[in-house]
Amino acid sequence: MASKAQITPAQIRDAILAQRDFATGFFADLAADSTDPAGGITRDTYGRGENHGHAVMRAAARDSGLDVTVDAAGNTYARWRAAGPGQTVLLGSHLDSVPSGGNFDGAAGALAGLVCIRALRALGLVPRLDICAMGIRAEESVWFQTSYIGSRAALATLPAETYDTARRIDTGRTLGEHMADCGCDVAALRGGARALDPATLAAFIELHIEQAPSLVKLGRAMASCTAVPGNFRYPDVRIIGEQGHVGTPRRFRRDAAMAGAELAARMDRFWAEHEAAGTPIAITFGRFHTDDRIHGLTSVPGLFHFSIDLRAYDEEILAQAEAFFLAQCSQIEAERQVRIELGPRKSAPVGHASPEIRAQLQAAAGWLGQELMTMGSPASHDAAAFAAAGVPMAMLFIRNANGSHNPDEAMEIDDFLEGCTLIAAHLARQYASVGT
Amino acid sequence: MASKAQITPAQIRDAILAQRDFATGFFADLAADSTDPAGGITRDTYGRGENHGHAVMRAAARDSGLDVTVDAAGNTYARWRAAGPGQTVLLGSHLDSVPSGGNFDGAAGALAGLVCIRALRALGLVPRLDICAMGIRAEESVWFQTSYIGSRAALATLPAETYDTARRIDTGRTLGEHMADCGCDVAALRGGARALDPATLAAFIELHIEQAPSLVKLGRAMASCTAVPGNFRYPDVRIIGEQGHVGTPRRFRRDAAMAGAELAARMDRFWAEHEAAGTPIAITFGRFHTDDRIHGLTSVPGLFHFSIDLRAYDEEILAQAEAFFLAQCSQIEAERQVRIELGPRKSAPVGHASPEIRAQLQAAAGWLGQELMTMGSPASHDAAAFAAAGVPMAMLFIRNANGSHNPDEAMEIDDFLEGCTLIAAHLARQYASVGT
Repeated sequence: MASKAQITPAQIRDAILAQRDFATGFFADLAADSTDPAGGITRDTYGRGENHGHAVMRAAARDSGLDVTVDAAGNTYARWRAAGPGQTVLLGSHLDSVPSGGNFDGAAGALAGLVCIRALRALGLVPRLDICAMGIRAEESVWFQTSYIGSRAALATLPAETYDTARRIDTGRTLGEHMADCGCDVAALRGGARALDPATLAAFIELHIEQAPSLVKLGRAMASCTAVPGNFRYPDVRIIGEQGHVGTPRRFRRDAAMAGAELAARMDRFWAEHEAAGTPIAITFGRFHTDDRIHGLTSVPGLFHFSIDLRAYDEEILAQAEAFFLAQCSQIEAERQVRIELGPRKSAPVGHASPEIRAQLQAAAGWLGQELMTMGSPASHDAAAFAAAGVPMAMLFIRNANGSHNPDEAMEIDDFLEGCTLIAAHLARQYASVGT
Repeated sequence: MASKAQITPAQIRDAILAQRDFATGFFADLAADSTDPAGGITRDTYGRGENHGHAVMRAAARDSGLDVTVDAAGNTYARWRAAGPGQTVLLGSHLDSVPSGGNFDGAAGALAGLVCIRALRALGLVPRLDICAMGIRAEESVWFQTSYIGSRAALATLPAETYDTARRIDTGRTLGEHMADCGCDVAALRGGARALDPATLAAFIELHIEQAPSLVKLGRAMASCTAVPGNFRYPDVRIIGEQGHVGTPRRFRRDAAMAGAELAARMDRFWAEHEAAGTPIAITFGRFHTDDRIHGLTSVPGLFHFSIDLRAYDEEILAQAEAFFLAQCSQIEAERQVRIELGPRKSAPVGHASPEIRAQLQAAAGWLGQELMTMGSPASHDAAAFAAAGVPMAMLFIRNANGSHNPDEAMEIDDFLEGCTLIAAHLARQYASVGT
C-alpha cells in the first residue's frame, strides 16, 4: 500500500470526475444504435444490438490507448498492463439488454472498468498487476433461457451441449449459430478453449445498477453486495388441460389457464409468507399465457404456458421452495384434471462475495469518507459465475429510480461516478503504485 | 291435430331413419373443406370456412327440392311452403365454428331442419304453415367478440354501429368489410332491412349438441332446454403494471400477470361457492396472457391481457356477479399497484324457452315413447336472440361425449336422428296435415 500516503482521496475523486464527458459519451454512443422503436433499449444477445455494444466498447478502449482483445466467445477485454507477468483484476459486466430494457443495466459495469483505468492512469499510477475492463456477452437469460453464457464460456464452465440446445427465443436458432454469426470460434469453445484461467484472476469486480428501488428509498447512492442469489428455473412449463366450450360446467372443466392462475397465486402466497418472515426470495412468472393460436373469448383454455424463476441466497431455502413448487404442481394436477409438463430445468448456485474484497471496499469507502451499506443482490449477475469458478468476487450496486429491465431505468451519472471513485480508490490502494 | 291419429310414431321414426345417409353425407361434405391442418374443424365467421358451410346447405336444400334464399346478412333459408300465406316455423342453427372446433356444433341444427322437412314430406304430409330450415351466420363470438350477429342481423336487432366497430380478431378487419366480401348487402342492413319479422314467426326451434358431457354422464340422449343463459363479457381487459427485473422484491413489484392470476383465482372461488350452493353460473377467462412481444423468463410482466365471459340464468345473479368482479378489480388495483382497463363491455339477456313449445315437445316425446329430461343451456345460442325479439323459442340438446369447441367433439348419428324424430313428431302434431 505504498501509494496510500501519496495519493489523496480528493485526487482520486477529481480524476474520476474528469471522466464525466467520457462516460456520458459512452452511454450516448451505446443508446444511439440500440434504441428500440417499441420503447427503451434492445441489445439482443449475440445479435445486432449486443454487437453494437461491443463495438462501442472496443472503440472507446482503443481511444483510451488500452490493449483490446476479443475471446472465442466474443467477450471484449481492454487491458492496462503491468510491467511484468502476473495476475489480473477484472472489472466488468455485460453489454446486452433485455428487449425494451434500459441503457445502464450491464453496460455501466463495463464502462466503470474503463473509467477507473483512465482515471488511475491520469494520476500517473502504475499497475502492479494487469487491470482489465471486460465487456461480457450474453448475460440476459431471456434470450437463450440460459444464465451467464459469456462469462461461463470464457471460464470454460458452460456445458458444451448448450451451444446446440439453447435456442434464442425470438429466432429459434441455436446459440452456436448466433455465435458463429458474431464471429465467435464455437469450435474452439466446444473443444474446451478457456480465455480466463481462474488461477490467474486476483478478483472480479462488477459495478451494476440496483434492479429495484431499495437504495432510492433508503437515500443511499450505492451498496456493497453480500451475495448473488442462486436460482432454479423452469423456462418452458406447459399445462395441458382440455379445450372446451365457454358454457362447460366447472366440474367438467380441465381449464389450463385457471390451473396456471391457481398455481401462481399459491406461489405468491408462499413468497408473501417468506417476505413476512424476513427471508428474501423472489418468484417470477415472466411468461404466463394461453396459447396464441387458439385463445379466445368463448373457449375454455386447453393449453397454458409459463416460465418460473425462483431465487434465494441460501441453498437450503432454494431446495425447500422447489419442493413446495413441485408439490403444488402435483396437487393442482389432481384437483383440476390437468397435466403439467415441467420441461427443462435450469439452476445456478448462490454466489457469495469475497469477504476480503468486501472488507477492502469498506476500508476504501472509509478512506474516501463514503458511506457504504451492504445488501444481497436481488438479481443474478456474471459475478456469480466467477464466484462459482473460485474467483474472489465483489459487486457494487448503484441506485436506480425505476427498477431495471424496463425503458424507464434511471441512473444518475453522479451516482455512477461515485461508485467508480470507490472502485478506483480500492484499486489504487491494493494494486497500484505511484509511477516514477 | 288432425294428423295425430293418422300418422304413427313408427312412421315418423322410420321416415327420419331413412335420412341417415343424407345426414352423414351432409356432415362429410361440411368437413371435407373445413378441416383445419392445426386440428379439428375451422369454419371462420364471414370467411372461407363459413361460406363453405352455407354452400353445402344450399346445395343440399336445392337437391331436396326446397326454395332456397339468402338474406342481406348471408343467412340461408330452405323453405317448405304451405299452400297459403301465414306464419313460419324456423328450424335452425349456425354454420360457423370456433377455430379448431368440431363439425357438429351449430351445423347439426341447420341439418336437423332439412332432415325433418324431408322426412315429413316423404310421409306425404302437407305443412299448414311454412316450415323453414335456417343456416345462421356468425354465432361464434370468438371471431368478432359479438353475440348472435347473423340472427340479430336477420331480426334487425343488431346495433348498426357493430358493422364498423366489431373487428375480426385474426384479421383486424371490420364486420362490414368481411360481410361485403361474402356478398352481403351491408348498406341494406345499416338502413334497417329486416329479413325476419317476429310477428310472422310461430316458433324458432334449435337442435344443438350439448356443450358439456352432462347428458353422456346421465346416460340420456337428449334434453329439452329451459333457458339460454345471459352473460356479460369484457373481451379485452388490460392490466397495466410495471415491467421490472426478475430480482425485484415483492413489495416493489407491480406485476400485471400476478394481478391477473389473483383475480382469476378469486373469480374461480366465487364460482365454486355458487356451484356448491346449486346456483349455475360459468366463468371463463378464454384469453389470459402476458404480452407476446416482451414476455420472458427474466422480466416481471408489466402488461397482462384477458377476456372474461360470465353467464347465468338469472338477471339478478348476473348483476351480483358483475358487481363482485368489478369490486375484485378495484381491490387488486389497490393491493398490487396496477391499473385495470376494462375496455368494451358486452352483454346478452337471459333467453327463456317457450313454456308452450316445451309442453308440446314433452307431449310429442310421450307419444313417441321417448324420455325427455330438461336442462338449462350452459352455452349461448341464437335461440336467445329470437327469444329476445319475442319469438317463441325451444331448444333440444343432443349428447356429445367430449364437450364442444374442440376437435374431439363427438355426436352419435343415432342420437342426432332421435332428436330429429322428436322435432318431426312435434311438427307433424302441430303444424302439418296428411295430404290428399
